[in-house]
Amino acid sequence: MELETLIRQAAGREPADLLLTNLQLVDVLAGEVYPAEVAISGGVVVGVGSGYAARDTLDLGGAYLAPGLLDAHVHVESAMVPPSEFARAVVPRGTTTVVTDPHEIANVLGLEGIRFMLESAKGSPMSMFVMAPSCVPATHMESSGASLDAVDLASFQSSPWVLGLAEVMNFPGVVGADPAVLAKLRAFAGKVIDGHAPGLSGRALVAYAAAGIGSDHESTTVEEARAKLRLGMTVFLREATNAHNLRDLLPLVNAANQHRFCLCTDDRQPSDLLDQGHMDHLVRMAIAGGLDPVTALRLATWNTAHHFRLHDRGAVTPGRRADLIVFRDLAEPRPHLVFRRGAIVARDGEMLPIAGPRAVPHLRGTMSVEWEGIDLAIRAEGERVRVIGAIPDQLVTEHRIERAAIAGGFAVADPARDLLKMAVIERHRASGGLGAGFVAGIGLRGGALASSIAHDHHNLVVIGADDLSMLTAAKRAAHLGGGLVVAMGEQVLAEVPLPLAGLMSDKPIEEVRRRLDVAIAAARELGSALHDPFMAMSFLALEVIPSLKLTDQGLVDVDRFEQVPLWVA
Amino acid sequence: MELETLIRQAAGREPADLLLTNLQLVDVLAGEVYPAEVAISGGVVVGVGSGYAARDTLDLGGAYLAPGLLDAHVHVESAMVPPSEFARAVVPRGTTTVVTDPHEIANVLGLEGIRFMLESAKGSPMSMFVMAPSCVPATHMESSGASLDAVDLASFQSSPWVLGLAEVMNFPGVVGADPAVLAKLRAFAGKVIDGHAPGLSGRALVAYAAAGIGSDHESTTVEEARAKLRLGMTVFLREATNAHNLRDLLPLVNAANQHRFCLCTDDRQPSDLLDQGHMDHLVRMAIAGGLDPVTALRLATWNTAHHFRLHDRGAVTPGRRADLIVFRDLAEPRPHLVFRRGAIVARDGEMLPIAGPRAVPHLRGTMSVEWEGIDLAIRAEGERVRVIGAIPDQLVTEHRIERAAIAGGFAVADPARDLLKMAVIERHRASGGLGAGFVAGIGLRGGALASSIAHDHHNLVVIGADDLSMLTAAKRAAHLGGGLVVAMGEQVLAEVPLPLAGLMSDKPIEEVRRRLDVAIAAARELGSALHDPFMAMSFLALEVIPSLKLTDQGLVDVDRFEQVPLWVA
Repeated sequence: MELETLIRQAAGREPADLLLTNLQLVDVLAGEVYPAEVAISGGVVVGVGSGYAARDTLDLGGAYLAPGLLDAHVHVESAMVPPSEFARAVVPRGTTTVVTDPHEIANVLGLEGIRFMLESAKGSPMSMFVMAPSCVPATHMESSGASLDAVDLASFQSSPWVLGLAEVMNFPGVVGADPAVLAKLRAFAGKVIDGHAPGLSGRALVAYAAAGIGSDHESTTVEEARAKLRLGMTVFLREATNAHNLRDLLPLVNAANQHRFCLCTDDRQPSDLLDQGHMDHLVRMAIAGGLDPVTALRLATWNTAHHFRLHDRGAVTPGRRADLIVFRDLAEPRPHLVFRRGAIVARDGEMLPIAGPRAVPHLRGTMSVEWEGIDLAIRAEGERVRVIGAIPDQLVTEHRIERAAIAGGFAVADPARDLLKMAVIERHRASGGLGAGFVAGIGLRGGALASSIAHDHHNLVVIGADDLSMLTAAKRAAHLGGGLVVAMGEQVLAEVPLPLAGLMSDKPIEEVRRRLDVAIAAARELGSALHDPFMAMSFLALEVIPSLKLTDQGLVDVDRFEQVPLWVA
Repeated sequence: MELETLIRQAAGREPADLLLTNLQLVDVLAGEVYPAEVAISGGVVVGVGSGYAARDTLDLGGAYLAPGLLDAHVHVESAMVPPSEFARAVVPRGTTTVVTDPHEIANVLGLEGIRFMLESAKGSPMSMFVMAPSCVPATHMESSGASLDAVDLASFQSSPWVLGLAEVMNFPGVVGADPAVLAKLRAFAGKVIDGHAPGLSGRALVAYAAAGIGSDHESTTVEEARAKLRLGMTVFLREATNAHNLRDLLPLVNAANQHRFCLCTDDRQPSDLLDQGHMDHLVRMAIAGGLDPVTALRLATWNTAHHFRLHDRGAVTPGRRADLIVFRDLAEPRPHLVFRRGAIVARDGEMLPIAGPRAVPHLRGTMSVEWEGIDLAIRAEGERVRVIGAIPDQLVTEHRIERAAIAGGFAVADPARDLLKMAVIERHRASGGLGAGFVAGIGLRGGALASSIAHDHHNLVVIGADDLSMLTAAKRAAHLGGGLVVAMGEQVLAEVPLPLAGLMSDKPIEEVRRRLDVAIAAARELGSALHDPFMAMSFLALEVIPSLKLTDQGLVDVDRFEQVPLWVA
């Protein structure tokens, strides 16, 4: 908006576009709630006070008005829909800005993937800022679809939509002063650099902080979060579908340090977004957990805007963007109106139609497997095998040693012992790469599950009771251009097509959710008792989270950060 | 420091330069105080914790360690010494960074003056950041030595030492959308823009905030400061020599909003700096006023660093600058050790000698008056005159109407009624410009005071009981290249030479203070009971502070913001 017009309207010399009246303003700067009128023009708040005139007036009926919510760290891909559709799910919940790490698609499609995300977010009523993915690939022990070095990442530096360097997951690389990691840190020196350092402590954590990494969202205990806070890191309180840390960390937040926390979702599945919500859910959880409502809202607004140096938003003050939410219950905020740049974009939980809805940008197919070369059989080479022990609702796994089930010279699944076979098939360049092993804790009594979502490399992961079911599921997933599949023998029982990079659907999020529900139900029929076996699967191949993981290159002992053989002498 | 070395030392793989032990760390981020060891190398904190090794160890004997203090807004010129000498006064008090508005010298010497200040600060143990002076001249109703428009100011934008636009004192210009003022705001859009809006309220204040002005240090009441806080402005709590607002505003600071305040000194005279201190004095005042010590320190460290986006300082955390203070009493911090970039620069209140002390950079003379054209006589043109009513310890004045004292057809001083003559003589380009009038509240029974410090234009201001004394004082001040002078008849009683732009001495601050004490004592002998009549004088010509002021162009009714005649019908 033109500065002169802004000033004239702020001073009350000419009417604003819209005046919001009869409201309680949630002031996240002064930490107060008080009645005020808010005048809006040209997408920004021009006046806060009383006596303003406007062409239109909206009586909010005594409801609360607060800044639009910000997600400090989210992988949009985890919602299995592109940003435009993600916005349709979260904007009605009050989220007007997200800071995303397009790490998943970058591991599949590199810079092309990041550009797809930026392009898909255009024209949506949600501001999507990008942190440049720092770990593509996550480690040398996986085969991703792309590799981004410091020079690649630096190419995004001048974009106004790229704020800094995303979660530096390779904390051993930082602490060990790995030259390639340091080159990325140097490329973003002076900008915001986010962290990811689960369990890191002591002088290793000091080194991580000293490197300029200014946040972390992986703490699971108050002690861990306090150590990071004391080293100057902003602590992101995370509440993801598969990682629930908010409630555990809340006791750390107090009056003296509340400006050092942000809320973030990291990864949220369609059903959680649709049933629980997005940042509004986290705000409600924080309040239910004992946080003062204004403080809870501050953690999801001003603090996040400030951390990311987004000086144009995060509070309802003159000159800032009119990204606003309206709700009736301060103790349990549920936005019934959401404004983006002064215009209502969602009402009663539904996004309003946007002018000229954009098609999802074109993206090339990414599933590339030569099936002739793929053999899931595991030749018996001993008596005991390493087994990945999945733990319900946790990303960490156990590193178990179990007696192998041998049949005809091959190690096979033993569903009676909940011992399933697992394979990770390289799917980016048909290299024939294949890692095979065993997993416990999934619970299938028969059949197989396949998924092209497998953090972070997103190769094709398949878990099953027999090779036929596994191949059926895996081949179907590849045929769909990516997706989640449940199969039994030669029969496909359920499927969720994810043709966008093998990570996201091109369908409405409600349809994705319905299909996912059906697929999970099918997996339950086969015996898995997990809340979401596909989500669990997707982290079993992530070799940066302890303790034992399987990539397309084989088993990784994460605690020792090295590849290990399947067979144990 | 090289990133790789930093990480190696932070991780404890190689020794640091210096280890501080046996200390209580004041953590202004977590809001706690706890024992820790702090390792330092290459000017930055490399480690906080325990178990570090270093080439040198310093046992702090259980003292407190906190970040070096920052002054959020100071006119260094008010200390009557250049930055290098100012540093010698404030660094031993714990100030390691100041954000200065070189507004005074810029009004005398324009860009040349700003460059002089930057040059003079080089090599000192104090970081001096500059905000580009926004109001040179302050208004069109004065004749300054230079004029800086938006294009001039923009020339500093790329300097790493220039953070933004300094206090925008022309608030009527902002609220009235004056094109020249808006051009300056546009030139610094997206950067930090500081404010100065005494008494501004209602929608005029909203317009001022909407224009992007993000702070204010002129509030005198809690209500005024609260209104600014609520509009998103950072509130600077000021404790200047001639403006005491800290104690009055402290009740506004609470747990919910404490991240929105900074401490600043604005203007402090040599005696206050030497006797009371600098930011350390403000911190002690804030604690004495009821603020928790860690919060008080936060207002003088992290909050200020954060407001000005100085991400490399403001807290004792790994990777940040090792600008540190050490003190023994948390309830009354008096630094006995000050570190700058990890090196001790002051001990027990004295600055240590610095390597290669720099000479004060050369500056041309600035006093230019053609005395033949100067006539202080005021021809009688009526019976009643406007009189500036000085109020002890306040910058505002009364706008009085008094009966003139007439003698021989001329209006003259009447010391019996405390009615003195005042003149402001243009001194930058010998234009012959002269404003003349009367002032009450100074208290001289005879003689005259002259000063080349007269905010903001810094013309030659002289106040006295008779024209001869006034001319003696004024001419001597000009002869000195600027300064403060006390005279009686043809005799100079005391003088403080200020040859640097007529604002600053080239002598040690202790000598300036001694001379100033002598001059004030001489003024007292002549009858003035004011704490510092020269400071009072220096604001009587400032036509942006209510209510009646005198510039070289004549009397200004500040409330109506227009020139007014001396005589009232």
